[in-house]
Amino acid sequence: MGDPEGYVYARSSAKPFQALPLVLSGAVDALGLTDEELAVACASHNAEEPHLNAVRSILEKAGLSEEDLQNGVHPPLYPPAATKLARSGQEPKTIHCNCSGKHAGMLAVCAHEGWDTEGYRNPSHPLQLWILDIVARVCGLKTDEILLGGDGCGVPSFGTPLRSLATGFARLATGVLPDDLAEAVAKVRRAMRDHPYMVAGTERFDTAVMRGTGLVCKSGAEIVFGAGSPDGWGLALKISDGGVRALRPAALAALSRRGVEVPDEPESSPVRDLHGEVVGEKGPLF
Amino acid sequence: MGDPEGYVYARSSAKPFQALPLVLSGAVDALGLTDEELAVACASHNAEEPHLNAVRSILEKAGLSEEDLQNGVHPPLYPPAATKLARSGQEPKTIHCNCSGKHAGMLAVCAHEGWDTEGYRNPSHPLQLWILDIVARVCGLKTDEILLGGDGCGVPSFGTPLRSLATGFARLATGVLPDDLAEAVAKVRRAMRDHPYMVAGTERFDTAVMRGTGLVCKSGAEIVFGAGSPDGWGLALKISDGGVRALRPAALAALSRRGVEVPDEPESSPVRDLHGEVVGEKGPLF
Repeated sequence: MGDPEGYVYARSSAKPFQALPLVLSGAVDALGLTDEELAVACASHNAEEPHLNAVRSILEKAGLSEEDLQNGVHPPLYPPAATKLARSGQEPKTIHCNCSGKHAGMLAVCAHEGWDTEGYRNPSHPLQLWILDIVARVCGLKTDEILLGGDGCGVPSFGTPLRSLATGFARLATGVLPDDLAEAVAKVRRAMRDHPYMVAGTERFDTAVMRGTGLVCKSGAEIVFGAGSPDGWGLALKISDGGVRALRPAALAALSRRGVEVPDEPESSPVRDLHGEVVGEKGPLF
Repeated sequence: MGDPEGYVYARSSAKPFQALPLVLSGAVDALGLTDEELAVACASHNAEEPHLNAVRSILEKAGLSEEDLQNGVHPPLYPPAATKLARSGQEPKTIHCNCSGKHAGMLAVCAHEGWDTEGYRNPSHPLQLWILDIVARVCGLKTDEILLGGDGCGVPSFGTPLRSLATGFARLATGVLPDDLAEAVAKVRRAMRDHPYMVAGTERFDTAVMRGTGLVCKSGAEIVFGAGSPDGWGLALKISDGGVRALRPAALAALSRRGVEVPDEPESSPVRDLHGEVVGEKGPLF
């Protein structure tokens, strides 16, 4: 539907691809990273305790600390975690940012490779050039067909045709790729599939989809959603206005047409007033 | 632009009209309500201290209390007020809801008229029937041309053609109405114009517009914005996707074409990442 050749920025939907250097470099094995830690490196996490602990552990194993994270600061995505932090009188720190796992993973690769850990966000840093090459290969593009933008956390964000992002997720799910990438992709996929809570968290859509189906998926800011099936297809979805409320109805309707039902995630849901009374409904119109 | 005859729900943009019974009933004079209190009855307020104090004062003057408010609960709209409340260990209460001034005003009318104060939210309560009649008269409609929906706070919300909402705001600004309404409208307008902080609060668009121009204005949920000029025109604007970030660019572009500039409110503004670096721009495309 829409324009499959239209460019969209993958934003955090690219995180599974951005985590591949952790495996490809050998850092995962050399540093003894767990599957939970690999999953949080692919995460837009809720900043719940298990997420924070996993991010701290990656940094510790890499000989680094929270001080090295350059992902910027925002309050925890999960409202109860944000409230708890505020009540404790503490200010949010870099580790609470939903991208801190990705950045910890990037730093771990740099530490393992002996690369500069201060300039790792720079698009010309060897890590970022490597990631660009990986995103291109996984999505079936040349690097100069990818648009580079700035993501919220200050690393490059990848603009690709919607169809190419779907291709990337199909390959993430199936591992149909050259040998070197296939093996790394399989490890990332298994980590995400085995630990969907680490990829997002309580009440999050990505977690619900991976818990309830055979898919691997990852959503991103301004509402982009990529999913891949072991049956060989990929889905990429972009909500043009960036409104988060359209994500579930649109994604669930699209998945349903592929025969995938996500348990406890209805396509349509009531809109309630502050008294809990139903005043409307949101759902897919296609 | 767009479809001026298309129906939109005025949501909180109707608050200045919903406050008219306070004046028309004589409650404002009988209870000795101040202009600040009348302004907060027209407000979607930030739940900053002056807002809370004004709402409490209305209730007290009416012989009522916070317990009588039936507007539902959400954290303060103003993030620092929400953080402060969370840090104090308190849960949000009805008074923190942005609509508590409107509800306090509705309750004050009921108390003054000797009407039931428990059922005041019911669409068939005499107050709600009166408000419906007022909205129709001010907007130049028959009552049966108004669609009734449920607002977030549990009182009727009014669906009108966009053009009719603009008419309502032109009349709010000019008072070109039958005598009984003209006088009440002038009092509400003066209260809002003299106390724009009470209508919204720190960093809020409505407050900035009324402080910086000669307009009277009020925005509402799902992004509707009404403004009236003493020159005799009204503006009604609806962002179809309900996205708040479009409000300022669209409203400022529309106002600019009418020769109204709002100080310190640029039509276009940078999109920054978490490091403060510019990664994009938002602005009007028309």
